[in-house]
Amino acid sequence: MNGAESLVRTLSAGGVDVCFANPGTSEMQFVDALDRTRLMRCVLGLFEGVVTGAADGYGRMAGKPAATLLHLAPGMANASANLHNAKKARTPILNLVGDHALRHQAYDAPLSADVEAAALPFSDFVRMTRSAADIGADGAEALAAAMSAPGKIATLICPSDTGWDEGGVVAEPRKPQGPAPIDAVALDAAVEALGRGHETMILVGGSVLEDVALTALVAGIAERTGCRVAVPAANRRLERGRGRANFAKVPFAVDLAVEMLADVRTLVMIEARQPVAFFAYPGKPSVLLPDACTRLTLADLHEDGPDAVRALADRVGARPARIADAPRATAPQAVPISYQALEMAIAAALPEDAIVVDEGLTAGRGIYDATFGAPPMSWIAITGGSIGIGPPMAAGAAIACPDRPVVSLQADGSAMYTIQGLWTQARENANVTTVIFANGTYEILKHELTRVGANPGRSALDMLEINRPSLDFVSLAKGMGVPGVRVEDAATLCQAIRDSVKEPGPKLIEAILA
Amino acid sequence: MNGAESLVRTLSAGGVDVCFANPGTSEMQFVDALDRTRLMRCVLGLFEGVVTGAADGYGRMAGKPAATLLHLAPGMANASANLHNAKKARTPILNLVGDHALRHQAYDAPLSADVEAAALPFSDFVRMTRSAADIGADGAEALAAAMSAPGKIATLICPSDTGWDEGGVVAEPRKPQGPAPIDAVALDAAVEALGRGHETMILVGGSVLEDVALTALVAGIAERTGCRVAVPAANRRLERGRGRANFAKVPFAVDLAVEMLADVRTLVMIEARQPVAFFAYPGKPSVLLPDACTRLTLADLHEDGPDAVRALADRVGARPARIADAPRATAPQAVPISYQALEMAIAAALPEDAIVVDEGLTAGRGIYDATFGAPPMSWIAITGGSIGIGPPMAAGAAIACPDRPVVSLQADGSAMYTIQGLWTQARENANVTTVIFANGTYEILKHELTRVGANPGRSALDMLEINRPSLDFVSLAKGMGVPGVRVEDAATLCQAIRDSVKEPGPKLIEAILA
Repeated sequence: MNGAESLVRTLSAGGVDVCFANPGTSEMQFVDALDRTRLMRCVLGLFEGVVTGAADGYGRMAGKPAATLLHLAPGMANASANLHNAKKARTPILNLVGDHALRHQAYDAPLSADVEAAALPFSDFVRMTRSAADIGADGAEALAAAMSAPGKIATLICPSDTGWDEGGVVAEPRKPQGPAPIDAVALDAAVEALGRGHETMILVGGSVLEDVALTALVAGIAERTGCRVAVPAANRRLERGRGRANFAKVPFAVDLAVEMLADVRTLVMIEARQPVAFFAYPGKPSVLLPDACTRLTLADLHEDGPDAVRALADRVGARPARIADAPRATAPQAVPISYQALEMAIAAALPEDAIVVDEGLTAGRGIYDATFGAPPMSWIAITGGSIGIGPPMAAGAAIACPDRPVVSLQADGSAMYTIQGLWTQARENANVTTVIFANGTYEILKHELTRVGANPGRSALDMLEINRPSLDFVSLAKGMGVPGVRVEDAATLCQAIRDSVKEPGPKLIEAILA
Repeated sequence: MNGAESLVRTLSAGGVDVCFANPGTSEMQFVDALDRTRLMRCVLGLFEGVVTGAADGYGRMAGKPAATLLHLAPGMANASANLHNAKKARTPILNLVGDHALRHQAYDAPLSADVEAAALPFSDFVRMTRSAADIGADGAEALAAAMSAPGKIATLICPSDTGWDEGGVVAEPRKPQGPAPIDAVALDAAVEALGRGHETMILVGGSVLEDVALTALVAGIAERTGCRVAVPAANRRLERGRGRANFAKVPFAVDLAVEMLADVRTLVMIEARQPVAFFAYPGKPSVLLPDACTRLTLADLHEDGPDAVRALADRVGARPARIADAPRATAPQAVPISYQALEMAIAAALPEDAIVVDEGLTAGRGIYDATFGAPPMSWIAITGGSIGIGPPMAAGAAIACPDRPVVSLQADGSAMYTIQGLWTQARENANVTTVIFANGTYEILKHELTRVGANPGRSALDMLEINRPSLDFVSLAKGMGVPGVRVEDAATLCQAIRDSVKEPGPKLIEAILA
């Protein structure tokens, strides 16, 4: 057995059954091994950012890592922006990156570059395997690293000869590191803080938000103690909608976030860190909490958040809250698509059990609150601020959950970073409804430009507008095999989403914003 | 004056007058400074790979660096694949990468990552500036590094407060390091080797190929001594066509390259290194030269190739060769577009003074030889093997040379990595004719798969075919404001190119290969 086959068999035994791939010559022996063993579903991306964005969406919804197959240092680099998002989300992903054969690395061949150095800034674990005999064991170790709490990016660099040489050994799965136990002293302190009611806030993220029973229990703690609850601005996955707890997000805008947190005296953090400004601005704080606020880490990111919630509930005598149903939004009239009309249209259109991909940015900022009363859904958002995750993340989520409709809320400027993801949606016949928020501008940057004190002239604004020429997303989608439609009023938008989610396969709706 | 303005004024004084940009919040003060000073032409890309690919095309044709403006570590990562190509080409580029304000770097904000570490594998010079007072001087040093022989990738990381703080100081331009002198002993040895005629080969690259007089002199040395001449498989820029020297390229395929070099006893290298296999394969050599061949470096990459050529010519008594005109290709018949018909169509269609962008790969491999007799042209090719350079490189070349038609020879799979470059072509009304070689497959990989000994099955081939769904490049182009046409016979293709190059603005021709 060659090294490539031993690696594929090792990973398969460890539970990996999907491989998102953009392979090149140095990965052909892995393509061959995947082909011969038929142990994984292989999903092709036309660009490496699609591969990792899809692996992120898959990992968030499947709760386990996909493998990726990437091509040398430039392939690693192209993959990195969406790995950055996945790393911040703590999504488990196992990257396999081909490299030149070990004997070939002495020569400065055109594609030579330092793959390890390229991988390090965007990975939690990096290893280069050195022989066909080692690649199985290295793969098992990398997989265990990826699956360790709270979820990690593991990158295994595979020189091509370690794949094609004979002598591969299938390795036993290795046990990933589970979440670390919480600290009893921190628990006592948290219980004490909860005794002070409203001046205490629980900031809860990570795995807790993925479990409806746990979020109900968090809401029960708030009911029982009078404390407040918030969630980070963006999360790996958040279960919400009708009958489920609805927690406020820490706002993106610094001023709003400072206002929300102004009278918090103790912040109890469960799988979350203290909220900070997304960016620094002249004259504005980096830290959003008041100086006098006590930061209390009950469960750090790698610690056992579910246990923390259960222990807290037990200590304060809380039971799961019964969440009252919010009224369902009604379909909007045929009005131009203002932000508010956009929110209504989406809230009214979301089907049962949707997966909502959130890269809506400026135009989409109100949709979260507007959809509290919509049917139960999973909400997966861009976590690392590296725009261009939506089209691939939607594809990956659909592959993890083929029976659930995916609704992808997509800013137009961001869509263009990894628009190639539409092709993978078409190829896999994924039930993804992409709604493009078409305002023809990097709207967010116009706000940002004034925040640094600029009084922008024509040439500055020109750097922020993307409507010269206009992007025609319906044509772009057609070019990649995805049917599309352009809508200019909110009623048509709502109906188009309702129609699309019922049909198999992807669709793109270009919503022209007013 | 704030730091951002001092940097812009410093770079402008050093000769930088174009900035390719994909800015975000942390670069808004640079956008503002560019806006207020009007010292540079700003060109927007929808994706960072477009920005750096365009800067590469610009640098190759302008012979001086453009600036780029990139957004934190993920922006640097997205930019890196085409920086890899530029680094291998030795194209001068100056990257300005925004980062969080220094005071904000202590917090793990969502976009936080190690920008320096991300930049290092794909740069020759990396520095993070530390204050508004320093940013001008750091910019001058980075610019000098970029312009130093043979052309380098310099990356200056600019925390946002170093841009918006007052106290900026405009720095004097610093002198770049010119090419190092050649070695007299090596010159003697090269002259001696040339005395042995046919068994000696000159491998010449770099700046020599950009100078028609120098290439004629190299051809004259060959005439005078009977030696052979070859050029590397891909080069930064190569001046060729009617009346100009025509040198054979070292082939991509290992077997063909080994055959070409089999009886070379001395290889005299001028701004070139010994040719090696692009990839390693089981049972095939990494080194293409025979063991017994003497490797003689007359001018290394950073040394003075033009001086080496002149000195050699002087010593052997050579004069510039008079190059006989080759017959011009005639327009092909209306036949299906085989590789041969493709070569004929392009050879017959190329206009005077074209810039040919070569990312044609498998289908385009014969076009170089076929266009020897075409009108004089500049030939700029993908150098680092990181596919996805064509659309942006063509845009950048057109911006450097607005009066010259650009003909971009583009494989279909590769086109999809940085297809967003079409939008920049449209926005800048660049005279670029993109010819897509549409075969619906990563053709090159099918050959590679068999070279590693695989007997591919359906699922392996599925990873190499991109025609499910078919890519429709005419729709993709339309989506980005570029008019397109699909052609299925060689005569129509030839005429479409001829028509397009005469018109201003971009056009895309999707050539369906037989």
